[in-house]
Amino acid sequence: MRDLVIEPLTKSAFEPFGEVIETAGARRLMINEGTTERLHDLARIDVARNEGRPIVSIFRATPREMPVTLHMMERHPLGSQAFYPLSDLDWLVVVCDGDRVPALSTLRCFRASGQQGINLRANVWHHPLLVIGIQDFLVVDRDGPGNNLEEAYFPQSESTHRVSFTADQK
Amino acid sequence: MRDLVIEPLTKSAFEPFGEVIETAGARRLMINEGTTERLHDLARIDVARNEGRPIVSIFRATPREMPVTLHMMERHPLGSQAFYPLSDLDWLVVVCDGDRVPALSTLRCFRASGQQGINLRANVWHHPLLVIGIQDFLVVDRDGPGNNLEEAYFPQSESTHRVSFTADQK
Repeated sequence: MRDLVIEPLTKSAFEPFGEVIETAGARRLMINEGTTERLHDLARIDVARNEGRPIVSIFRATPREMPVTLHMMERHPLGSQAFYPLSDLDWLVVVCDGDRVPALSTLRCFRASGQQGINLRANVWHHPLLVIGIQDFLVVDRDGPGNNLEEAYFPQSESTHRVSFTADQK
Repeated sequence: MRDLVIEPLTKSAFEPFGEVIETAGARRLMINEGTTERLHDLARIDVARNEGRPIVSIFRATPREMPVTLHMMERHPLGSQAFYPLSDLDWLVVVCDGDRVPALSTLRCFRASGQQGINLRANVWHHPLLVIGIQDFLVVDRDGPGNNLEEAYFPQSESTHRVSFTADQK
């Protein structure tokens, strides 16, 4: 059983999987007579294939008992999926490579702050939300025809990876 | 000079202008092995006309001096624009009817909570963000060809409406 190393979430480290949605480094436009700063176009929303359309939802995530032994990953073959936290708690992003099935040897775990969202590229294997408290996220993803969810389960008894995560841990 | 009446933001009151993005009344799906509730498809994102595409931005709004004398309205003829607050402060939404120009006699002002977003329908006249503290919003709107911004200015001296807004006022 291996404990995943928790890395800080940065644009460059996350680049193989998608974008980090954050104000740092954003293109800044002043609008609304100088009263509003527009941090412009922070994610590549990719939801149009196969007659897809963008939808906005709120995900309310509840914490799992730690440590979490990983026993499944999922991906969305037809569209990107963006998450932005609506409360200021850190949260975890677990992703990996893999063609037909997740390549568990490539698992990575990123600690996002409460001011960092992510946009997962289509077809990127990821673990469902991992939070330390009940936390809402604004989500922009795809609705439309076709199967946009693939899940890969592996028996908990055979799991080789776990992750532990507390509010204090940095 | 007329002080706008500040109405509570409700789905039914706001219906002529767009959707209220909130958890109340949403379609609820349990996902992620029962650890996440998905409050599904809360806004009609309409950004595809004229080769438009959805983009995600963060708007950082700063308060104006109150009372605000209204002297302009704007609209986006080619797409919807969704706002969701990223901090728990109330904020104001000012909208009105109007074909070529805003019909100021129809102005309405809604007080949104910090857990309420809105999605403005394309072509709805609205005032730029009105906040009581510096407040970030996640914004889903349109990028693409064509002019998607119309602004209507009216001289402040001829303005007939103002709005006042404090944290305490309910």
